[in-house]
Amino acid sequence: MTAREIPYKIYLDESEIPTAWYNVRADMKNKPAPLLNPGTHQPMTAQELSAVFCEDLVAQELDNDTRLFPIPQEIQDFYRMYRPSPLVRAYCLEKKLQTPAHIYYKFEGNNTSGSHKLNSAIAQAYYAKKQGLKGVTTETGAGQWGTALSMACAYLGLDCKVFMVKVSYEQKPFRREVMRTYGASVTPSPSETTQVGRKILAEHPGTTGSLGCAISEAVEVAVGTPGYRYVLGSVLNQVLLHQSVIGVEAKTALDKYGVKPDVIIGCAGGGSNLGGLISPFMGEKLRGEADYRIVAVEPASCPSLTRGVYAYDFCDTGMVCPLAKMYTLGSDFIPAPNHAGGLRYHGMSPILSQLYDDGLMEAVSVPQTRVFEAAELFARTEGILPAPESSHAICAAIDEALKCKESGEEKTILFGLTGTGYFDMVAYEKFHDGRMDDYVPTDEELAQFRARLPKID
Amino acid sequence: MTAREIPYKIYLDESEIPTAWYNVRADMKNKPAPLLNPGTHQPMTAQELSAVFCEDLVAQELDNDTRLFPIPQEIQDFYRMYRPSPLVRAYCLEKKLQTPAHIYYKFEGNNTSGSHKLNSAIAQAYYAKKQGLKGVTTETGAGQWGTALSMACAYLGLDCKVFMVKVSYEQKPFRREVMRTYGASVTPSPSETTQVGRKILAEHPGTTGSLGCAISEAVEVAVGTPGYRYVLGSVLNQVLLHQSVIGVEAKTALDKYGVKPDVIIGCAGGGSNLGGLISPFMGEKLRGEADYRIVAVEPASCPSLTRGVYAYDFCDTGMVCPLAKMYTLGSDFIPAPNHAGGLRYHGMSPILSQLYDDGLMEAVSVPQTRVFEAAELFARTEGILPAPESSHAICAAIDEALKCKESGEEKTILFGLTGTGYFDMVAYEKFHDGRMDDYVPTDEELAQFRARLPKID
Repeated sequence: MTAREIPYKIYLDESEIPTAWYNVRADMKNKPAPLLNPGTHQPMTAQELSAVFCEDLVAQELDNDTRLFPIPQEIQDFYRMYRPSPLVRAYCLEKKLQTPAHIYYKFEGNNTSGSHKLNSAIAQAYYAKKQGLKGVTTETGAGQWGTALSMACAYLGLDCKVFMVKVSYEQKPFRREVMRTYGASVTPSPSETTQVGRKILAEHPGTTGSLGCAISEAVEVAVGTPGYRYVLGSVLNQVLLHQSVIGVEAKTALDKYGVKPDVIIGCAGGGSNLGGLISPFMGEKLRGEADYRIVAVEPASCPSLTRGVYAYDFCDTGMVCPLAKMYTLGSDFIPAPNHAGGLRYHGMSPILSQLYDDGLMEAVSVPQTRVFEAAELFARTEGILPAPESSHAICAAIDEALKCKESGEEKTILFGLTGTGYFDMVAYEKFHDGRMDDYVPTDEELAQFRARLPKID
Repeated sequence: MTAREIPYKIYLDESEIPTAWYNVRADMKNKPAPLLNPGTHQPMTAQELSAVFCEDLVAQELDNDTRLFPIPQEIQDFYRMYRPSPLVRAYCLEKKLQTPAHIYYKFEGNNTSGSHKLNSAIAQAYYAKKQGLKGVTTETGAGQWGTALSMACAYLGLDCKVFMVKVSYEQKPFRREVMRTYGASVTPSPSETTQVGRKILAEHPGTTGSLGCAISEAVEVAVGTPGYRYVLGSVLNQVLLHQSVIGVEAKTALDKYGVKPDVIIGCAGGGSNLGGLISPFMGEKLRGEADYRIVAVEPASCPSLTRGVYAYDFCDTGMVCPLAKMYTLGSDFIPAPNHAGGLRYHGMSPILSQLYDDGLMEAVSVPQTRVFEAAELFARTEGILPAPESSHAICAAIDEALKCKESGEEKTILFGLTGTGYFDMVAYEKFHDGRMDDYVPTDEELAQFRARLPKID
């Protein structure tokens, strides 16, 4: 800490909102493995990808070299509606924990979508609009991504078709209603409206759906409807690129006060938030300019980094998407029904998977009861009701801070607070009522899913 | 507009958060009428009020002369967790409406309670703690006030007992769950736990409750439990005092850019937001230093200012509270069941009632379908999902902006965006499904309630 007193919340000026996204791949010695054509097992070409994704996004997806991508003015304008997001010094939490550690969090929940997902949603919607498309399709699980995309599409006047995992559709009618407020159409998945949906329903009658299945439906509709493309809220390189706005802002704010984090912590499902938050810090690390401990936190019930394998796998259940090399639990893995938070995707961003495999970051997993304990403590001390997803990072940050208390070290901890939990009160209720369990898949279960991974040379 | 370009969001520095509340009563020539003892009809003394309210709050309630009340350091620290709140220039809405008007809104929804209520909740909890109390009781309707008070009490380690209007308790289980996250006990009202609750249940079996009834229960418990006092989220002078932080911040931000509003608009239920927002502007007006049009917006289904009478009335159904002179519809008035938003209290803050009666402000009422149309337009253009309450102000602001479009006038409009609508999706759903109606009480209905007003000389 410098002499200059650090406020509770560091807000940058609007003029300090990043004007370029930072592409961490440019600084990676080992690039993430390319997406493969599921039929030929050859790297997907730009032309092949353009059937599914918008052209500019395909270019971003494949570009491992360009370090900075200028953010188009229209996206910058939209960012001004809810950015810069605050970097908060967690004075109240530090006091509560009686830790000598300094804790900071980058809070991305102060927008109606309730999470960081909006950063990429507006970018993807913008490029779809620029290409003259009529609309986009996507899937959503907990609903944060669907909400974010609906907001972005409403702003730009694009049509938005969302396939929502059926169990979420039924348990989160309010999320659905927010998307409707933004003019999106929301279909519970699996549905009878697609071939793959009908196939899955026939094979698994009464299924409550999964992310992988909703992806397959959304891709089928995008490919089969003129003027439509598919967009995805996590995992992809392009998404991490857009989300770098989180990290670049956070680093600018810390630099202003001469603060250098020792540990950077983020929750990790598909990796969009973590990848974005760490990008400029990881860049320095890759270039040998600085060193940071970087920690991914995942649910013990969906442990792709800590218990998965690094291999090519399908991104979706219907196997219509390209293959990606990533830490994965297998494309038909679904977390136990009692798993309450998000972060339920079977695989991890190829970029993060490569960085993890190269030993450039760590990963831990936490059981959900501890996550909700951390969430409640955080809500009561910092005043923000966190999303279950974000609370994984809170949990790990508290653990680090308590270690500092024991050792007396005055470390600086930075974590990503990705969103708010207003639409997750059913999970909080379970926790309050003691109806939450900490089921963790056994080694035998994981081995079964792993045995079904595609064989790629 | 000055030469200096106005950003989308004006954030003050933490050092610019107000350090004193402004008491508009000090500048009023005609002071608000005193609260009366319901038995003797004599002005309530400090001693009498102290049986119900905390001592410092009683002093604030009765003080018509002190212009500035310093904000205690602990409350200032808490304010830093979520203040300053942004003053937003509604560029996107202006563009959408194609109006020459400049629209600003002070957004108070970026905290977990989702509204401005937290500004007074922390103050009232602080004074209770300072007095050495064990806890506080209160009522809540839509749940914003109960959530805010729960947050404040959790922060200070105070017990918090909330009586929640039964219909809200049942329709908004998630609000209840947020309060539980903050450690509050929540009882549906009317309940069997109080004398007044049992009486009301006996007289009206199956009633779904009302604010006035929940107030009676909360007061009964506060008065009958050692170490407890009652706190209220609106109407009272002390609440408007605390909420002046909204207006003082807004004025500081506007002054920085040399902007002077022509019209100031706020939604009005009990009057806490409107009273807070307008206070420093009204002060200038009362002192003859400036002139502003000030507009209260209320629901057509609960029109206390536009169709009520200015008279002494009961504040609660059980008639245990002091009498207040206010614009009122009668203490047993309850808006039609289809009324979706908040703003359902039968009376209006005595301060605002006096200012309105003196012709210092205007009032309009709007039907709820138009309110939700405005809410949806606002959500799609400005990206924030507004609370139904706040959307009354949005609706009136849009009307003003459209008048400017017709006349070509470049007026500056400031309105209060009090909160977010995440817990109001049942109402939005009604709107989307076309199940919302615009029932407005008839003159005959209003006359019936008016006939039951207490007779005070």
